[in-house]
Amino acid sequence: MLRTKEQYFEKLFRMKPNVYIGGEAVRRDDHRLRPGLNVLGVTFDLAQDPKWKGVATAYSTLINEEVNRWAHLEESPHDLMQKQKLIRLAARRVGGCIQRCMGHDAINALAICTKEIDEKKGTDYHERFINYLKEYQRNDLVGTCAQTDSKGDRLKRPSEQQNKDHYVHIVEERSDGIVVSGFKMSVTQAAYADELLVIPTRALRENDRDFAVAFAMPADADGIKLITRPVWLREKDDPDAAPFCRYGVSDSVIVFDNVFVPKERVFMCGEWEFGRRLALLFADSHRHSYSGCKPAVSDILCGAASLAAEANNIEKVPHVREKLTQYAGAAELAYAAGIAAAVFGEKTSSGVFFPNPIYSNVGRRLTGELIYHEYNLLTEIAGGISVTMPFKQDFLSPETREYLEKFIVRNPALNAQDSIKLWKFVENVGASPMTAWYEIAGVHGDGSLWRTWVLRR
Amino acid sequence: MLRTKEQYFEKLFRMKPNVYIGGEAVRRDDHRLRPGLNVLGVTFDLAQDPKWKGVATAYSTLINEEVNRWAHLEESPHDLMQKQKLIRLAARRVGGCIQRCMGHDAINALAICTKEIDEKKGTDYHERFINYLKEYQRNDLVGTCAQTDSKGDRLKRPSEQQNKDHYVHIVEERSDGIVVSGFKMSVTQAAYADELLVIPTRALRENDRDFAVAFAMPADADGIKLITRPVWLREKDDPDAAPFCRYGVSDSVIVFDNVFVPKERVFMCGEWEFGRRLALLFADSHRHSYSGCKPAVSDILCGAASLAAEANNIEKVPHVREKLTQYAGAAELAYAAGIAAAVFGEKTSSGVFFPNPIYSNVGRRLTGELIYHEYNLLTEIAGGISVTMPFKQDFLSPETREYLEKFIVRNPALNAQDSIKLWKFVENVGASPMTAWYEIAGVHGDGSLWRTWVLRR
Amino acid sequence: MLRTKEQYFEKLFRMKPNVYIGGEAVRRDDHRLRPGLNVLGVTFDLAQDPKWKGVATAYSTLINEEVNRWAHLEESPHDLMQKQKLIRLAARRVGGCIQRCMGHDAINALAICTKEIDEKKGTDYHERFINYLKEYQRNDLVGTCAQTDSKGDRLKRPSEQQNKDHYVHIVEERSDGIVVSGFKMSVTQAAYADELLVIPTRALRENDRDFAVAFAMPADADGIKLITRPVWLREKDDPDAAPFCRYGVSDSVIVFDNVFVPKERVFMCGEWEFGRRLALLFADSHRHSYSGCKPAVSDILCGAASLAAEANNIEKVPHVREKLTQYAGAAELAYAAGIAAAVFGEKTSSGVFFPNPIYSNVGRRLTGELIYHEYNLLTEIAGGISVTMPFKQDFLSPETREYLEKFIVRNPALNAQDSIKLWKFVENVGASPMTAWYEIAGVHGDGSLWRTWVLRR
Amino acid sequence: MLRTKEQYFEKLFRMKPNVYIGGEAVRRDDHRLRPGLNVLGVTFDLAQDPKWKGVATAYSTLINEEVNRWAHLEESPHDLMQKQKLIRLAARRVGGCIQRCMGHDAINALAICTKEIDEKKGTDYHERFINYLKEYQRNDLVGTCAQTDSKGDRLKRPSEQQNKDHYVHIVEERSDGIVVSGFKMSVTQAAYADELLVIPTRALRENDRDFAVAFAMPADADGIKLITRPVWLREKDDPDAAPFCRYGVSDSVIVFDNVFVPKERVFMCGEWEFGRRLALLFADSHRHSYSGCKPAVSDILCGAASLAAEANNIEKVPHVREKLTQYAGAAELAYAAGIAAAVFGEKTSSGVFFPNPIYSNVGRRLTGELIYHEYNLLTEIAGGISVTMPFKQDFLSPETREYLEKFIVRNPALNAQDSIKLWKFVENVGASPMTAWYEIAGVHGDGSLWRTWVLRR
Repeated sequence: MLRTKEQYFEKLFRMKPNVYIGGEAVRRDDHRLRPGLNVLGVTFDLAQDPKWKGVATAYSTLINEEVNRWAHLEESPHDLMQKQKLIRLAARRVGGCIQRCMGHDAINALAICTKEIDEKKGTDYHERFINYLKEYQRNDLVGTCAQTDSKGDRLKRPSEQQNKDHYVHIVEERSDGIVVSGFKMSVTQAAYADELLVIPTRALRENDRDFAVAFAMPADADGIKLITRPVWLREKDDPDAAPFCRYGVSDSVIVFDNVFVPKERVFMCGEWEFGRRLALLFADSHRHSYSGCKPAVSDILCGAASLAAEANNIEKVPHVREKLTQYAGAAELAYAAGIAAAVFGEKTSSGVFFPNPIYSNVGRRLTGELIYHEYNLLTEIAGGISVTMPFKQDFLSPETREYLEKFIVRNPALNAQDSIKLWKFVENVGASPMTAWYEIAGVHGDGSLWRTWVLRR
Repeated sequence: MLRTKEQYFEKLFRMKPNVYIGGEAVRRDDHRLRPGLNVLGVTFDLAQDPKWKGVATAYSTLINEEVNRWAHLEESPHDLMQKQKLIRLAARRVGGCIQRCMGHDAINALAICTKEIDEKKGTDYHERFINYLKEYQRNDLVGTCAQTDSKGDRLKRPSEQQNKDHYVHIVEERSDGIVVSGFKMSVTQAAYADELLVIPTRALRENDRDFAVAFAMPADADGIKLITRPVWLREKDDPDAAPFCRYGVSDSVIVFDNVFVPKERVFMCGEWEFGRRLALLFADSHRHSYSGCKPAVSDILCGAASLAAEANNIEKVPHVREKLTQYAGAAELAYAAGIAAAVFGEKTSSGVFFPNPIYSNVGRRLTGELIYHEYNLLTEIAGGISVTMPFKQDFLSPETREYLEKFIVRNPALNAQDSIKLWKFVENVGASPMTAWYEIAGVHGDGSLWRTWVLRR
Repeated sequence: MLRTKEQYFEKLFRMKPNVYIGGEAVRRDDHRLRPGLNVLGVTFDLAQDPKWKGVATAYSTLINEEVNRWAHLEESPHDLMQKQKLIRLAARRVGGCIQRCMGHDAINALAICTKEIDEKKGTDYHERFINYLKEYQRNDLVGTCAQTDSKGDRLKRPSEQQNKDHYVHIVEERSDGIVVSGFKMSVTQAAYADELLVIPTRALRENDRDFAVAFAMPADADGIKLITRPVWLREKDDPDAAPFCRYGVSDSVIVFDNVFVPKERVFMCGEWEFGRRLALLFADSHRHSYSGCKPAVSDILCGAASLAAEANNIEKVPHVREKLTQYAGAAELAYAAGIAAAVFGEKTSSGVFFPNPIYSNVGRRLTGELIYHEYNLLTEIAGGISVTMPFKQDFLSPETREYLEKFIVRNPALNAQDSIKLWKFVENVGASPMTAWYEIAGVHGDGSLWRTWVLRR
Repeated sequence: MLRTKEQYFEKLFRMKPNVYIGGEAVRRDDHRLRPGLNVLGVTFDLAQDPKWKGVATAYSTLINEEVNRWAHLEESPHDLMQKQKLIRLAARRVGGCIQRCMGHDAINALAICTKEIDEKKGTDYHERFINYLKEYQRNDLVGTCAQTDSKGDRLKRPSEQQNKDHYVHIVEERSDGIVVSGFKMSVTQAAYADELLVIPTRALRENDRDFAVAFAMPADADGIKLITRPVWLREKDDPDAAPFCRYGVSDSVIVFDNVFVPKERVFMCGEWEFGRRLALLFADSHRHSYSGCKPAVSDILCGAASLAAEANNIEKVPHVREKLTQYAGAAELAYAAGIAAAVFGEKTSSGVFFPNPIYSNVGRRLTGELIYHEYNLLTEIAGGISVTMPFKQDFLSPETREYLEKFIVRNPALNAQDSIKLWKFVENVGASPMTAWYEIAGVHGDGSLWRTWVLRR
């Protein structure tokens, strides 16, 4: 089934109010979550659009139906290129992070790793997972990947932490399932996901056995709290504003407090030797996803910088043109890394086709290294107005309006309303709370470069 | 007279409410201006403190009194070094921009340029200006420099603009003064300055004569509107918060609508050949001031990064130590540039000692090139928590408090309250509206590198 | 026919001695050209090796034979990937520049452009060229592309130059051919090429008509002089030395002094509108070739740095490991750009499949920006010994040998002879005449970034 | 006494032939050492020139005479600024490294450290050293600092090395002196120094006691061999060549084979606690010297780039102008760091005034980070000709001369001879053996950044 966004919303709004924002439990229709819902909405709209069939959707041989690509297990280089294309396409429409790749990368990682554990250990995780995934595909669910533990002291392994909850762990093993506790953090999309897909965040040793756990649970299951920080720019739509401000993200600290996970939803339970493998399968798949979204972020920055250059009437000045080409360089090198990762990927024993991790990683590293510089470029071209422009109401007030409408027009080819809209867009892109989020996620999303170092030991 | 900050506030609050914020005229005790007032307060407190005599104050031979250094004409390399020292000292206390150097740099530029115009043209601007300055010193006034015109089309000169108001200009010359109109923009500190010191922003040609104008006016004079955008982080003091959040800035678009300036307050009137000179005298003096404040910004970032490293227990990891030394490199190279500018400065015909512009400029350029990178370093060390940390109220709410107090402690050497305070500070420094302001002002404050290019033609 | 290198040499040595080195005409068996011949030899050896069939060779539908890939017109994305693979493979064996891609990229560009001229102008260049190419393939010739004119004053177009010879141009048009004169410069491989493939270097205007000329001539034709600068490291093979020093390059200033070109070898004659197109077809194809060779240069630098790290026993030090990964990043991003250029390339009207120029260019730009940095990394890891190591003879002399053999062993796991060889290799790679050549060719090979700017106008 | 360079040469040529080059012992008048002698000659010429009195010379209160500044103990900030000025001045005349600062920095370090050892240990090293220094000043000697041990395995301390000779050490202590053995390497200037000033290269521990040794010996003393690698560009002066090629350097591996050092020349003998201190005193003083010479290197590169820009007629192109300002930025920030180090230096107990190590280090680090980039800038402006220009003889040969004289003139404002000279100069600066030497010495001279890290532990 390909759900409509309305169906997605409708299910969300019936969930238990275990999302906490600013000290209170809220329902998932809280206006501060709306920008995130708008992002997810695009992932449903694209799948409904026949034009994007085969890009936004794919044919699942598991359930013999066309499914939303975000719920698909990729089978070929072409599949990976379609995923990358979809992400760039969708990310351009929502101003950057499309979020739903979290679930996609988690299911692909779990499909591979459960197979490999079974092969080594004689377990039956893969079958369990495939059964779970069939329902996931049939219901076109939104999953998020809860990987990043709160980790506590960075120099200590999970079992060495003073506070054991710094890594999600098994509290009890029962015949019908397990009980887990602990904190995950910086989990994007959790507040409006149907399902949480939980996996380890790092390599583990034998005495970290309790921390070797993977499972899926509905996001509003008993014992789960999502303490959430949304990033939002305004409370409701303003017809004069650029669409950028209607989209946003939220991140959650997820508290697991003695949560019971039934056996059929448990996909790793103590197999510590596979902690590193599963962590990296998700991470490397996710880094491949970044080869779709980060080019889109560069595209958007390039668009904002181009508009600012036009408004300043400097778009033909040589240093400005050179700077704009830097965005193209960043975007296309990252995109090329994703293409090469697809071309040189490999078929795993599960049947999932996995992107080449070297190419996924060099691409992701490049974008992580450049992100602050890309905002710097926008600033150089746009000038200081992003942080000194009067507030919207001043542009409307009778005492100041006439002045400001003359003030805001630089290039006479643009009128006052377009100039205001343009500069507010530049501000939203380059000097808003979303800016800090994109800068920091650009560095750390999917594991910082130096954490990777540790992880791979 | 060395005013107390209370005296400064008291005079401010009596001014006409010509500050506009969010569509309405407000008095200068508006809470959104308070963070800026707190910054200026420090400039008065330091001057009251005997410990900083000779640094925060200086002896004025004009009025034969100790005056606040921000109101002083510098006479020697030592004076310039004391100014630089004061700025770094004060900037560290307010989290960065101390703002009041705007007035300082304007009076030093005007003292020099009025003398040079008189020498060439036989005018008497210098005497007028010195008379004005004596009162300024006696009353320990806060002046801001209104230099940046709104500029309109960046490829056209002032006289070529379709909308003449894009550069402040002379509308009428009378026997007792002049009438001026036009827009200045991105003027920091204007909303809580006593005086506006207005100077040209670029080189001028003969047909730009009307734009060659410099003068001083009280900030609430008839015909002046200050359309203001404050940056503030919270509405009132929170005892648990780091002091950083109590300080802030505001920038104004200044509308001059047929403002009459009496003759004794006019310091340039049509001498277009000196437009470039006066613009650069302020800019180069201000760039020297940056050799005090930008090291302080690096110091603060280094402090935040060090605290984050300690909380993560990674302060001895080699790459972290190397990154911390990068802050020292940025700070001390910029500071050294200021010292060399003082050592190799020159005595002008006015008696003012002026910093060497080559050293002022190489220092300023360095800090402009590094600013985004310095925030990047903080992000690399601090991780993603700055944009995903739950809101303050969630740390207080009974439903989530217990979890979050365990969650927030990483290095067990820190307790929950200190951990919260520390991470909120890191967020305030690295991912707040002040961050965008410091990033963008770091690039453009005092003229972007590429604008400088044009200016110097 | 797939020639052996001996057959190639044999033909070369029979050519007229029109190569000038150090003031005298020399035969092509001059020892200073030998390092270049060794490079070309590898291109013949690989084609003889059945293991590399389909990589080093390709099936030509023009002559219905397997041909050396360097003589092939590429027909598909797969062809382009095989070319890229071949270049990386071969470049690793010769220490970097394989040179023969010059001819490959010229023939592909000429095949496309002659077709396009014909389509627009009704000429018959394409047939002429294909006839020429069949012989070229049948005889497995080595062609070099003579593109870069000496250009004179960089701000003047060809027809504006005081000295017309700064661009190769048509002196006379006859019924049976044309007469050309002028200088080409920095032409790598010319001194040991069979054929010179001459094309324009930039966009042309109508009055530059005489400069719109493309043709092929044997490198020793009447009126041609090759004033050549070889880069060589030693005169003959030393069994103790690393192979790197046996390979090298040479570049020539090519003087055309009233050279008659018979009609069947003329492929453009006055069609100035196609000057830019042909210049870019070669350049963009060549930039795609760089996505094969520059990764090999990074691989070699990485190898040298790894060996140095091992000899210093610092290969596990974190900053060293991080630096080594930078080579991987540079190499694989450039390689990925080539792969993406193949995937997103296009079929031209000539049937030749052409790499996507955006991806070719972002890849080439990256490697151009990084080249000096990559040598810097090697220096950081290897230390100063590359420029302070005693000469070879001192390691042999009885008066100093015993000391130096103790001196040179750092990591006791390596003996003296291996240590000497290793450090001489590091010196050859990082501090020899080849180093300067690779640094400068790394920046400018195939058109500097800023020249590209001008070219594309 | 202020010697003339002829006096200096005369004494040198009488020394024992213990310099080894290419397998044989040579006298110090070997032509391959001449470029280095020419450099040292400038240090004598400047001191003879009354114009530079007080810069190239200083008044020594030790011997109550004007002495060459390179033999002076600095007493004030002004002294340090004069030293810095002298170095930049002299370095500009010799194309970069003036070499003689090695001795200067060693004597200042020894003066301070001997005093501090005496204060702690009750020894009499300081008096010994001052007596030695008086003779050194009276005879205007050239000393070089032999600091860098060959070091062997980089992860092992001196006493842990398998081959003890990797650090110079005490073999025997006698009543009248000590016997020392071991290797120093990369010692610039040793082959034409009068005296070797030997000091430790790193922090030491108690069991490294034998390696805690400092002393001075004539460079041709018994048991010393200087295995030397000169960098030279041509054998004798060519009137058409730019002066750059007449100057050069040489570096030596110094073998100490049971060398007896008389007591009065021993300045540290077993005081391992001062190993780190003495190593850093020299290093930090030397880093201050770099704030004089590295700006000169940037000046020379800037000059070469400016000439190339002029010859290409692109000196007004915006990106070229911007690149040229980067040299100014590098040079003046480094110079400013030296000025600040002088201003914030400190008087040591010995009376020597010592530069502030923070400023010395941030300046040195900057130049080390930029050196490859500065060569890259030259390459970007000059183009590829530095590595493809025909040899000198081809410009003279009748068969090619006429062509090449037309070929070489780009900007018609320059004639052929000036064009040849200019481009040969650009080649000498940017693509000669001196280039590799300056690049590598630019990174490692005075201790690499990462070695510093270890040293300071």
